[in-house]
Amino acid sequence: MASPVFSASGHLVAIGGAEDRSSDLEILKKVFSLIPEGNQVVAVIATASGIPDQVLPEYQAAFSRLGASQVHELKIRDRQEAADADTVRLIEQSGLIFFTGGDQLRLTNVLGGSPVLTAIRQRLQEGAVVAGTSAGAAAMPGTMIYNGAAADALRKGAVNLTFGLNFVDDLIIDSHFLERGRFTRLMEVGASNPEHLGVGLGEDAAVIIHPHGILEAIGPGHVILIDSRDLASSNIADLAMGEPVAVEHMILHALVSGHGFDIEARRYLVPHELSAILAENR
Amino acid sequence: MASPVFSASGHLVAIGGAEDRSSDLEILKKVFSLIPEGNQVVAVIATASGIPDQVLPEYQAAFSRLGASQVHELKIRDRQEAADADTVRLIEQSGLIFFTGGDQLRLTNVLGGSPVLTAIRQRLQEGAVVAGTSAGAAAMPGTMIYNGAAADALRKGAVNLTFGLNFVDDLIIDSHFLERGRFTRLMEVGASNPEHLGVGLGEDAAVIIHPHGILEAIGPGHVILIDSRDLASSNIADLAMGEPVAVEHMILHALVSGHGFDIEARRYLVPHELSAILAENR
Repeated sequence: MASPVFSASGHLVAIGGAEDRSSDLEILKKVFSLIPEGNQVVAVIATASGIPDQVLPEYQAAFSRLGASQVHELKIRDRQEAADADTVRLIEQSGLIFFTGGDQLRLTNVLGGSPVLTAIRQRLQEGAVVAGTSAGAAAMPGTMIYNGAAADALRKGAVNLTFGLNFVDDLIIDSHFLERGRFTRLMEVGASNPEHLGVGLGEDAAVIIHPHGILEAIGPGHVILIDSRDLASSNIADLAMGEPVAVEHMILHALVSGHGFDIEARRYLVPHELSAILAENR
Repeated sequence: MASPVFSASGHLVAIGGAEDRSSDLEILKKVFSLIPEGNQVVAVIATASGIPDQVLPEYQAAFSRLGASQVHELKIRDRQEAADADTVRLIEQSGLIFFTGGDQLRLTNVLGGSPVLTAIRQRLQEGAVVAGTSAGAAAMPGTMIYNGAAADALRKGAVNLTFGLNFVDDLIIDSHFLERGRFTRLMEVGASNPEHLGVGLGEDAAVIIHPHGILEAIGPGHVILIDSRDLASSNIADLAMGEPVAVEHMILHALVSGHGFDIEARRYLVPHELSAILAENR
């Protein structure tokens, strides 16, 4: 799965949290529209959530309203359940697999290396949509942030990283990004290794990660990109843990709905450029 | 005063708020050390503050500890007091004029066009130090931010600007920057006019603005710079008020103590470069 540019047949959608689930459903509607024809079965995985009995019915209602033929409510609380053959079968039948918010470490701890995760990756390869909000978005890359107070970040070691679900490997994703002022978290990660694009998702904002590594912003909010590839200098390697990190030259973009970005080329795409590229790749 | 590059003989010091006032005094010590020889009189102006009787004694104690020969505690609550001849005389005798935090709009509303402000500008031209923390820092440029929730910023019109005290005109200054996640406020200003450098001061962090427009970061915290001059595109002019602003290509730096920046050349200065330039201009 981890390729230099995202290459699955299906679509990944990373949502910054607090997406509208009861009114216009702008983002969820777009997610649902990406499902390949002929399979409108949705699986909602609430593993990350501490309140699955509250969130699962919300998504059940939203996706039913959007026309889902079935919505499987999957709590998957532990590794036994993540190996359950019936659950694997439900995943295999689903055109959209949706991860709720909560704690991304619970998500990876329960699902890492499990038959359910293997089935989800397989479905993504085959063309299904994999979407997630908040923790469910942060956990998507090969490496994820699972902790780090924004106010203390940009001090060596303040941000905690570990392996993610590895649906995509060219980026690092953070959620609730503008609302919780998390710019410094992605700056610290970028200073530690400038190769991976930082994607900061605002609330009620999302990116579709199209095949060929084209990002498309959707929703009413912002998607912030922090591109460290041309980082000129940083003191990070010379510091003791906790000392403040200096950063010379990162590039900052703010995408709104309809704007895009080519991950490999590191190129911002204004709406007409994005449309042309998506049409070309269709 | 408003010149393309800061050209007074004295030093401006903009502090991000919550600087240490009772322990190591790292920033205040540096501010005090910039006072030209032979005049260690300090004037502390608490106009911005809602609690002048609490903050003035703190600065009285700190600057006395640092060796001030006198510390004038100036509340200056209204425009009558801002025109007071005795107060003007105290300013004229001071080697350091220090603005406390509080509300920058109170600061400009009370001091704008006043004899006290004229005297402060004159002292800066003559070589005195003018320093300010939080609101006292934000108010220093020709144009200042006085309001705008960080979580809602980067939506057209979310950030409110007005005239500042006009000690320097090449930048826009924001305080409590990392702690309150204010990146989007400077991004919105940068999108509206990319000419002016955005300076985001973290708490217990500061910049010295040296003659010739050389910035020097001091203190334990971070100074974030958002440079929009090479902005490639933005939709801001086409939006209705409240709509989300797209931004293509701003440059982001994080300075720590000893690092600098040349405003006119838009050049990051690592410590040995900064030292060389400061030595040259001495």
